[in-house]
Amino acid sequence: MINIAIIGFGIVGSASYDVTIQNAGLIEKRVGDSIKVKKIVDIREFDDHPAPELLTKNFEDVMNDPTISIVIESIGGLNPAYKFTKAALMGGKSVVTSNKELVAVHGKELTEIAKQNKVSYLFEASVGGGIPIIRPLKQCLAANEITEIYGILNGTTNYILTKMREEGRPFADVLKDAQEKGYAELNPAADIEGHDACWKISILSWVAFGKSVEIENISRKGIDDVTAEDIKKAKAGGGVIKLIGRAKLLDGEVQCTVAPEVIPLSDPLAIVDGVFNAIVVRGNFVGETMFYGQGAGGRATSSAVMSDVIEIARNIVASRK
Amino acid sequence: MINIAIIGFGIVGSASYDVTIQNAGLIEKRVGDSIKVKKIVDIREFDDHPAPELLTKNFEDVMNDPTISIVIESIGGLNPAYKFTKAALMGGKSVVTSNKELVAVHGKELTEIAKQNKVSYLFEASVGGGIPIIRPLKQCLAANEITEIYGILNGTTNYILTKMREEGRPFADVLKDAQEKGYAELNPAADIEGHDACWKISILSWVAFGKSVEIENISRKGIDDVTAEDIKKAKAGGGVIKLIGRAKLLDGEVQCTVAPEVIPLSDPLAIVDGVFNAIVVRGNFVGETMFYGQGAGGRATSSAVMSDVIEIARNIVASRK
Repeated sequence: MINIAIIGFGIVGSASYDVTIQNAGLIEKRVGDSIKVKKIVDIREFDDHPAPELLTKNFEDVMNDPTISIVIESIGGLNPAYKFTKAALMGGKSVVTSNKELVAVHGKELTEIAKQNKVSYLFEASVGGGIPIIRPLKQCLAANEITEIYGILNGTTNYILTKMREEGRPFADVLKDAQEKGYAELNPAADIEGHDACWKISILSWVAFGKSVEIENISRKGIDDVTAEDIKKAKAGGGVIKLIGRAKLLDGEVQCTVAPEVIPLSDPLAIVDGVFNAIVVRGNFVGETMFYGQGAGGRATSSAVMSDVIEIARNIVASRK
Repeated sequence: MINIAIIGFGIVGSASYDVTIQNAGLIEKRVGDSIKVKKIVDIREFDDHPAPELLTKNFEDVMNDPTISIVIESIGGLNPAYKFTKAALMGGKSVVTSNKELVAVHGKELTEIAKQNKVSYLFEASVGGGIPIIRPLKQCLAANEITEIYGILNGTTNYILTKMREEGRPFADVLKDAQEKGYAELNPAADIEGHDACWKISILSWVAFGKSVEIENISRKGIDDVTAEDIKKAKAGGGVIKLIGRAKLLDGEVQCTVAPEVIPLSDPLAIVDGVFNAIVVRGNFVGETMFYGQGAGGRATSSAVMSDVIEIARNIVASRK
């Protein structure tokens, strides 16, 4: 049995727990051993927690359990996620995360710490929700020089832009609607000002080019001043407006931007509507590839989180032989 | 240095050689060792072969060289590809292939032989050309129960259907055109009768569900009796006709079909035109994901071939430690 812990039992953490229960049989078959959640850390109270016996408020309970080999960090934000991740890695536990902000800011350092301690720090879920993109970049496209990577990296803004286009309504109106439906947060700045997309394009740039671009060096423009008129104009010209995160090689340097762009209908990204995300990768042999799927939401994101857990678990099983 | 051999120096074999030359530096960096083509086997004569000193007509020259650890089989067809692959695996050499027919018919047996000999048999390039799909299914989506997988798996038929729709021309006319341009073979049966798509959906079914469906148990219908009228009707109804390979779980059994289908414009496959391919995967957590790119052509396919070579090379490097 391979024991894991989940830190942060929000949307992603609880869905990851659900995967381990609902798909237990097939995961055991694919890994060659069962994966069991042994501890769940969260400071909140839960009235209807599915596994109250696993719940603790104290992260040290994970650190003090030597049978836990993998930690899912789904707290989000920089702190205490950074502190907990570092402690787990230095304590010989692999960490899997969906935390894009932490990976964008400290991913390189945490990966280095993982290597020094012969464990893994994996973050497939930090970009594109359930869309496989980090591992394909590292492995499937490893024979290519990547020349450009760009995409629709934020579901909230894509939902808003889609509604504005389909219904001809102004930004503020659609945002309010999205907030009421739970598609946008009450404080929507991270999404609509493009911070979320910045974290993600920074991570993609690091994985694709081996060079990370500091968040403050990414030219960023959100969607808050896109007007219904802009969208109508784009449509008349045969295009749609999308918030695009883009990283490309220019004279050996990586240039990163986040901005609303007019995408021609011939571009495969043009059909990516609502909360869907998609990422286009150009390589010098593969040409153009696109990865498409649900860019957010607990269930889709937990698919990516658990794929990382499964990779580490398979390595643990292989190392026993 | 990791030595490899290429068997079959056609479109895919020669492009794979090009990758090892053009991207040598970045591959060495990503693998931790250099990858060098030591032998190229082909029975044909070449007037302008880029590396005549590596060329041999005798497969035994590869078998007799213990320094060659990876063989790229890009001959195509069942024989002698099957015989050579089996010999290489039993001789302790890993094999990477783009040969969909061989994988569809003998993939399970060859994988078993690879395991027994502690080497690998990898076939990312056998489906979807350069599109990463085999490895994402095995790894990135491993936490999911896959419920359905379907897609546009053949570039030639998709090119013909796209031209028929865009230009309102009849099948025979467009086929002739495609043959003249080299997009369709002079004997186009494997493509237009759906055999090629059958091999590919059979491979996808095996990887996604762990159950292979015998080619003769796949319900197959080609595009040869699709008329310009059919396409016009589909268009009027808000759809496009695509040759779809489809595999789904039905009461625990895998059902595979290849047939022209009317795809609604809301389906992401609807925008996949010309020689592009795309594969949609549905999983019980990830929801719907799509993988899109160039489904054929030497350069794109060699990207997938070389990603498999890199995976094996990384394992060789790791095993030295």
